[in-house]
Amino acid sequence: MRLGLIGLGRMGGNMRERLRRAGHTVIGYDRDPKLSDVAGLGELVGELEGPRVVWVMVPAGGPTQAVIDELAGLLSPGDIVVDGGNSRWTEDEKHAEQLAARGIGFVDAGVSGGVWGLENGYALMVGGDAEHIAVVKPVFDALKPEGEFGFVHAGKVGAGHFAKMVHNGIEYAMMQAYAEGWELLEAVDSVENVREVFRSWREGTVIRSWLLDLAVGALDDDEHLEKLRGYAEDSGEGRWTVEAAIDKAVPLPAITASLFARFASRQDDSPQMKMIAALRNQFGGHAVEAREGRSDT
Amino acid sequence: MRLGLIGLGRMGGNMRERLRRAGHTVIGYDRDPKLSDVAGLGELVGELEGPRVVWVMVPAGGPTQAVIDELAGLLSPGDIVVDGGNSRWTEDEKHAEQLAARGIGFVDAGVSGGVWGLENGYALMVGGDAEHIAVVKPVFDALKPEGEFGFVHAGKVGAGHFAKMVHNGIEYAMMQAYAEGWELLEAVDSVENVREVFRSWREGTVIRSWLLDLAVGALDDDEHLEKLRGYAEDSGEGRWTVEAAIDKAVPLPAITASLFARFASRQDDSPQMKMIAALRNQFGGHAVEAREGRSDT
Amino acid sequence: MRLGLIGLGRMGGNMRERLRRAGHTVIGYDRDPKLSDVAGLGELVGELEGPRVVWVMVPAGGPTQAVIDELAGLLSPGDIVVDGGNSRWTEDEKHAEQLAARGIGFVDAGVSGGVWGLENGYALMVGGDAEHIAVVKPVFDALKPEGEFGFVHAGKVGAGHFAKMVHNGIEYAMMQAYAEGWELLEAVDSVENVREVFRSWREGTVIRSWLLDLAVGALDDDEHLEKLRGYAEDSGEGRWTVEAAIDKAVPLPAITASLFARFASRQDDSPQMKMIAALRNQFGGHAVEAREGRSDT
Amino acid sequence: MRLGLIGLGRMGGNMRERLRRAGHTVIGYDRDPKLSDVAGLGELVGELEGPRVVWVMVPAGGPTQAVIDELAGLLSPGDIVVDGGNSRWTEDEKHAEQLAARGIGFVDAGVSGGVWGLENGYALMVGGDAEHIAVVKPVFDALKPEGEFGFVHAGKVGAGHFAKMVHNGIEYAMMQAYAEGWELLEAVDSVENVREVFRSWREGTVIRSWLLDLAVGALDDDEHLEKLRGYAEDSGEGRWTVEAAIDKAVPLPAITASLFARFASRQDDSPQMKMIAALRNQFGGHAVEAREGRSDT
Repeated sequence: MRLGLIGLGRMGGNMRERLRRAGHTVIGYDRDPKLSDVAGLGELVGELEGPRVVWVMVPAGGPTQAVIDELAGLLSPGDIVVDGGNSRWTEDEKHAEQLAARGIGFVDAGVSGGVWGLENGYALMVGGDAEHIAVVKPVFDALKPEGEFGFVHAGKVGAGHFAKMVHNGIEYAMMQAYAEGWELLEAVDSVENVREVFRSWREGTVIRSWLLDLAVGALDDDEHLEKLRGYAEDSGEGRWTVEAAIDKAVPLPAITASLFARFASRQDDSPQMKMIAALRNQFGGHAVEAREGRSDT
Repeated sequence: MRLGLIGLGRMGGNMRERLRRAGHTVIGYDRDPKLSDVAGLGELVGELEGPRVVWVMVPAGGPTQAVIDELAGLLSPGDIVVDGGNSRWTEDEKHAEQLAARGIGFVDAGVSGGVWGLENGYALMVGGDAEHIAVVKPVFDALKPEGEFGFVHAGKVGAGHFAKMVHNGIEYAMMQAYAEGWELLEAVDSVENVREVFRSWREGTVIRSWLLDLAVGALDDDEHLEKLRGYAEDSGEGRWTVEAAIDKAVPLPAITASLFARFASRQDDSPQMKMIAALRNQFGGHAVEAREGRSDT
Repeated sequence: MRLGLIGLGRMGGNMRERLRRAGHTVIGYDRDPKLSDVAGLGELVGELEGPRVVWVMVPAGGPTQAVIDELAGLLSPGDIVVDGGNSRWTEDEKHAEQLAARGIGFVDAGVSGGVWGLENGYALMVGGDAEHIAVVKPVFDALKPEGEFGFVHAGKVGAGHFAKMVHNGIEYAMMQAYAEGWELLEAVDSVENVREVFRSWREGTVIRSWLLDLAVGALDDDEHLEKLRGYAEDSGEGRWTVEAAIDKAVPLPAITASLFARFASRQDDSPQMKMIAALRNQFGGHAVEAREGRSDT
Repeated sequence: MRLGLIGLGRMGGNMRERLRRAGHTVIGYDRDPKLSDVAGLGELVGELEGPRVVWVMVPAGGPTQAVIDELAGLLSPGDIVVDGGNSRWTEDEKHAEQLAARGIGFVDAGVSGGVWGLENGYALMVGGDAEHIAVVKPVFDALKPEGEFGFVHAGKVGAGHFAKMVHNGIEYAMMQAYAEGWELLEAVDSVENVREVFRSWREGTVIRSWLLDLAVGALDDDEHLEKLRGYAEDSGEGRWTVEAAIDKAVPLPAITASLFARFASRQDDSPQMKMIAALRNQFGGHAVEAREGRSDT
């Protein structure tokens, strides 16, 4: 089928390629003319036929809103917009209502796959009406991995992004789990082959996973990770996961600990630990107590 | 080869079976005569030839110590004892020294596999001298999964149990990660198919793993886990992981949160939350303040 | 001076009393006619003279917004509205702008004191313009505790509620600190007088505080807190504190742990721990392994 | 009364001074001859009369054990040793038995007070037999703060150090609570006077405490703590608190988070966060994705 794809960055560009390999006709638009197939959204819409499917793959927030605003004026009743970006699930209902006012359908799609998606396929979690999803199904089928998994109609509008968001929250805590274990293994003298311990876990253990495979790949590149700084960004989705949990009064201790570890990793010096140091000085005396070592008293 | 195997419970019994399928001759001993091949450890040792290999698969602590004490009197220089139970790594050096005083070798082996090990093989993490491990190698080869992974010589005596312990710590946090995500998905109305969301993650996602496959299996048995109580035991290894981290000043926030979640799950009523309730009463007034709802002030 | 006070619940009612004891003339309004001095906001405003000061002490959210909407139509340029309720700090700027459009000033006031405030005074954290705060100063002086502390002009509009919110976050973690310590002391046999240990800490220790005094009071009522359930509500402010921290990428591990402990305390059965139990069953076998106790493998 | 005091470092030296001010005769011994009143323990014991009271105030572990070993040979039945150092509670029973074999009594005393103790008194938590404690009572009375609090007979041998250990665990979490709140307040623009916010809390709030007073003192010295590094040591007692909790299956999320924050503060670069960075690189692509910012996928 023909579809429009807006946003041809690393994710969007690879998705266009995977869709074309599957025989679909993709009209891609990007602000960067070197990447774009058309000069603007008007031209993109003009090259599609009703019911049109337009997949939006631009950054969450303002950029996504701007594209949806423009599409609302260009598309026709019966057309469908898919938001495949990392929008917060709370935006989806608003976008769906905005488009529904003009008879345009809306599907939110959480997309996982990273740089591996082009070859292996993208995991897709989608939310919206079954009739809208049915129209987009050939696109989903081309993007998803081969095999029986990797696609789900998670629920109503917003459910796709919500499921993807929770996926990322789980990912944070799984990454943290391996990272904590790795640091502890590296900290003891008796374990002489931490990298090989990780490698051995790839079969037969309870903790075998694709993330573990990636960890082994990273250790093969740099056995003690000496080339890296212990600095980790966080996408909005980890934060939103915790906020959603707070809203629902669901305790998320491991996921939240993982998010906070990332926050702390980005601080050159920790303000809160300055306060701890200051308090210790206040009641323990300023000089280090070498002789008796009693600074907590 | 011939080997002795002491402890024929769920783990040991299946290991005997897997070793026999691989062509080894296993002399098994268990306190339960119905399971045992021999009447006692003396008879077991008598049926082996030097250098003898005796695999101990009994509960950590007193039972393991008792078996090692008895073996120390029965075995000869050049024989090797493998502790495949869940001993704390701090015990291994003591056992190794005790046996070395009589010329007997010692290897500690962390074993993962659960009820799946009989068919799929057991992941093995071993610690000790290379020469001792070489003697036991045919046994390890029979127990481990097929393929290139699932076995590692992790380091010195103790490293095998240490690696297995950290494996379990990681497992705690990974399980907690999926569990937190599952609870959050179940808490929102828009996500209508939580089980199918989990199933879809089995391909194409960053969080695909064997534990995820098991979670889907559990949800297929009982979609909303209504048949279960939210009650989880912990083995000693999760506790030891946190203690080892404290000893090495390694922060383990996610693993520790997972351990504490299990502790809390076993309390009918939380003493500490009684104190929270008591303090709220003290400063907020005993009656619920319906009109203004200002109990935190 | 004369002022209007809207909302005469437990907090507002006591504040009216404290203000009157200090010689101020308070025109109070409450939806409950038995508490109210006037029939409505129009009458309340009519009884004041410019520049009028109206203190709003109603629940955050809709009720506060409704009062501010009504006051915006009743008050005159130069009058001042004080929001002393538990509004989220993000609301304050909106309220200030809404009122400023009519020339009305706005001050946000975080108020702490609970049932003790009538006698001991209320701690006040206020945000807004210095000229507005100066007008309200006699009211603040009457409400605050005697002595040099208990009042601060924290910053711009919103700073008062923000400071109060953080105060509550700190309070959560301090309460949790004592609660954890109490549970641990109660858990060991050698400590025979936990209540007396707490009482002894009231002098000479680093951890002496008013909350500790309250804890001793609670233990004097009920030494082992047997009359209470381990169940704790949370006000919105603890949640907002964590959300503000996430917004600013500030790690708050202790405060967040305290919030999550309250969430968990309100669950009859923990969904996430059901998933942990389910996963343990899947890989460890359904029956409890009494003999070897190896359910984590 | 007369007593011996072994260890005249910052704590012991001040305690000698406070005891002398109260009229007691203190025979002090220290390895440093400039501090010491006597040449050795033999001379110290010789200057006392039965029943002798000897207070040991040296570092926990080896030094304390060495002193107790020597005293066991020098003292007589009916004499009493008080261990006022920071010994782990698990040592106390051993020391009590060692001394009881020679008829010597043993009392463990947790001592809090820091540099403030000389003037304000030391909080004392003691464990042991009532008859032994009665003999030492005049010493306790001189060391403790004036007023009705600051001393407790917490329970059996070990209960004093246990109570002091828990005190320190609570202290960790309280310090962390203020520190987290301070960092959050400093992170927002609208709050312009964080130091004054803290100062205001000293009266009328739920969170007023001695630690808060100390925090204000620290901020008066250095308003934004710019002279300090965010680096905090931990004494053994925080670690022991968590280990005791693990042993008793008591969840301590806030105290443990506080301990881990200290561990992390001492790492120049976090190994575990290197692993997080490595994993992100593996699945998200090595280059930063400026255009779409989708590194979590």
